[in-house]
Amino acid sequence: MYSGKIQKALEAQGIRVGDRIIVDKAGRMYEGLLMPRIELGNRNAVVLKLDNGYNIGVDFTGAKLMPSKAAEPKPVKEEEEFELGRVRPELTKVKFDRKKPPVSIITTGGTITSRVDYKTGGVTALMSPQEMVYNIPELAQVANFRMLNPFSVMSESMTSGHWQQLAKAVAKELRRSRGVIVTHGTDTLHFTAAALSFMLRDLGKPVVLAGAQRSTDRGSSDGAFNLICSARVALSDMAAVGICMHGSMADDYCIFTRGTKVRKMHTSRRDAFRPINDKPLAMVWPDGKIKKMQSVPKRSTGVAKADTAFEPKVAIIKSYPGCMPDVIDFYVGRGYRGLVLEATGLGQLPTYGKVSWLKSIKRATDKGVLVCGAAETLYGRLNPNVYSEGRQCKEAGVLFLEDMLPETAYVKLGWVLGHTRSVEKAKAMMLTNYAGEITARTLPGSFLY
Amino acid sequence: MYSGKIQKALEAQGIRVGDRIIVDKAGRMYEGLLMPRIELGNRNAVVLKLDNGYNIGVDFTGAKLMPSKAAEPKPVKEEEEFELGRVRPELTKVKFDRKKPPVSIITTGGTITSRVDYKTGGVTALMSPQEMVYNIPELAQVANFRMLNPFSVMSESMTSGHWQQLAKAVAKELRRSRGVIVTHGTDTLHFTAAALSFMLRDLGKPVVLAGAQRSTDRGSSDGAFNLICSARVALSDMAAVGICMHGSMADDYCIFTRGTKVRKMHTSRRDAFRPINDKPLAMVWPDGKIKKMQSVPKRSTGVAKADTAFEPKVAIIKSYPGCMPDVIDFYVGRGYRGLVLEATGLGQLPTYGKVSWLKSIKRATDKGVLVCGAAETLYGRLNPNVYSEGRQCKEAGVLFLEDMLPETAYVKLGWVLGHTRSVEKAKAMMLTNYAGEITARTLPGSFLY
Repeated sequence: MYSGKIQKALEAQGIRVGDRIIVDKAGRMYEGLLMPRIELGNRNAVVLKLDNGYNIGVDFTGAKLMPSKAAEPKPVKEEEEFELGRVRPELTKVKFDRKKPPVSIITTGGTITSRVDYKTGGVTALMSPQEMVYNIPELAQVANFRMLNPFSVMSESMTSGHWQQLAKAVAKELRRSRGVIVTHGTDTLHFTAAALSFMLRDLGKPVVLAGAQRSTDRGSSDGAFNLICSARVALSDMAAVGICMHGSMADDYCIFTRGTKVRKMHTSRRDAFRPINDKPLAMVWPDGKIKKMQSVPKRSTGVAKADTAFEPKVAIIKSYPGCMPDVIDFYVGRGYRGLVLEATGLGQLPTYGKVSWLKSIKRATDKGVLVCGAAETLYGRLNPNVYSEGRQCKEAGVLFLEDMLPETAYVKLGWVLGHTRSVEKAKAMMLTNYAGEITARTLPGSFLY
Repeated sequence: MYSGKIQKALEAQGIRVGDRIIVDKAGRMYEGLLMPRIELGNRNAVVLKLDNGYNIGVDFTGAKLMPSKAAEPKPVKEEEEFELGRVRPELTKVKFDRKKPPVSIITTGGTITSRVDYKTGGVTALMSPQEMVYNIPELAQVANFRMLNPFSVMSESMTSGHWQQLAKAVAKELRRSRGVIVTHGTDTLHFTAAALSFMLRDLGKPVVLAGAQRSTDRGSSDGAFNLICSARVALSDMAAVGICMHGSMADDYCIFTRGTKVRKMHTSRRDAFRPINDKPLAMVWPDGKIKKMQSVPKRSTGVAKADTAFEPKVAIIKSYPGCMPDVIDFYVGRGYRGLVLEATGLGQLPTYGKVSWLKSIKRATDKGVLVCGAAETLYGRLNPNVYSEGRQCKEAGVLFLEDMLPETAYVKLGWVLGHTRSVEKAKAMMLTNYAGEITARTLPGSFLY
């Protein structure tokens, strides 16, 4: 809540949060959208979102405010690329420091760069990349940041085209930075993490994906904390693609988890990203302490290449009691080249009297579609040899993918089919471990970590 | 391994495990399938699977064996119903005891009644219901068991027709038993638990579902332990439908978890069944100790009714980056009346340029299809009001189902649409809490329990 004095001034002129206003402070004019007063800080300061994307607080002592009649400003240009502290230094607290290592931050949209849209009441992707790091002085203490915004989408609308664009941008940045941070919406963050894991070959540096479960206008916002820990990972000796997000409900540490073994397991908790059939690669504290939890490839002189060929004609099919296999025929009819079936148990698929999944699978494999099986339980490993039904699936041509996550299997299948027309070669590639997606032996203590 | 003496006799006649043989013990003839010698017990006893379904061990001292030429026996009659200890008492260790309460066990197939098929090397559903409890004397100490086998299927082939048949059998048994145990394959056990939760109305007694993750011929078999704990729940004061399976990796206790809030989360671990957005109703020890973890309806004089109307034309659709919404149109075209979309995040669905899930959803809802949203993350609650995209989904007619599991939502949707042709009434029913499927407030400590 704003102070009573500000409240009164707003009410007197019928001004509401989200309205465009001008604050006149002893003749100096500030113009922007009125933001709500967040929990902390000076209640007697009017918070404005300026047209350059930054929030500022103007102390209201000796000031007055009025509605603005100006037109809406143009949105921040996409593809904007700049070095923080060099461009518009007057607007940031960040100073460029030659002695510090360079780290690139690639923003792609999502909650971490979102704010409440006070016109509609919902949260939309509006924030400029600069703004995201503007209020995190801890970042500037450890590195110089290059900022890049190749595109902005809400993560549920991310496609393989975005992954390709992103992989190329990351590979390019890796050439001049110590490490790359990608900020991203959380809904499909684990899919993008898997895509970058496969698309970035000969990785010699850290690639860290981070998002926020709570938007920046909430007291419980996790974006800043995740970014600070991500910067620590980006500067670390771990050459891996992974997600760095809260490890617990508190702001105590983050976990950095392999990009092929991680899944969003909760709609809203800040510690929603959990390793599946794996432990985190490391626990990371904001002060730079890193505790490795397993062996991780070391930083090297390798120059990462973006190997982005991808076949988008792949789909995931869930199985459940009563699910009819004609959805397989549907995808085959539409020219899909690969399917991931979420199999129940150790690798079974249903048979209902004369309606058998096996027949549809056989039709698919006969047409050269690569049909894979992954565990619907998420945790655990498929073992189709235990039950006769599982062995029949295998004989019908289903390739069972060990302990690979269905979501990772989907991304990998698209990537593999982008690289070959040969089903046999694709099968061999699916069972080749490119980015830790298959573990020979599950680490103890990894179930429900 | 059998003793050297038995091995030699088998090898001399070319007999292998799974072959039909006769053991002649001082003129008394035993005929059956040769079973492998399991870890424990007399290595100098030949183990036979008799035609009545029981295993017996015949001490080989002074005995000889030979192949049998007899035809394969007929399988155990389905629908067989008997009271353990009354029928064929000479074949069981179980004595009927008038002073003990009656409990019904309904078997439906699955690993808990499976054994290795030595012909194919895989595990198949072969065991007779009697055999399952034959070697568990702890069961007979607490109750008299009525056994029932309405059908036998591997759980991946379970359909809503089976659920209806099962609900009727359970309701009938509840009239004459203190409680009912249903044994079931584990792959879709949680779907059947949800189905019975909705189909059994005015429940006044416990209904316990149990299965086994490891078959009985393995040292780590969990079926017996789960059954003993299930019997304790069946005799308890909890009037609820739930799953009773291992609570940890050890044989120390089981957890009894609400049938609408439970999911198989691991392919092979014995403690694979975990509560989602909930805690177990109770921890259960084999000696009868029960520790309730939340309030559970008490046993009452209510007479359960089977309310089994069900619409099988329902489907689950997963969403993921690049998934095309035409699969919605596919199901609508096939006359489906209800769809559960696994939404990402708090309730978002993708838009790819001009291809929007909203358009397909709108076409579906315009045709009277009830489209629901459930959380793909499994844990957490949907809140479509936070993001503009979520609110657009809601406006297009998607009914968001709070913290209901997608699998439970699917079962409930079929059950609700079996009861009404009115979409509005169905929507109201979907948001009515019938069996604990929606929790107003998530219990602390329930994430990744």
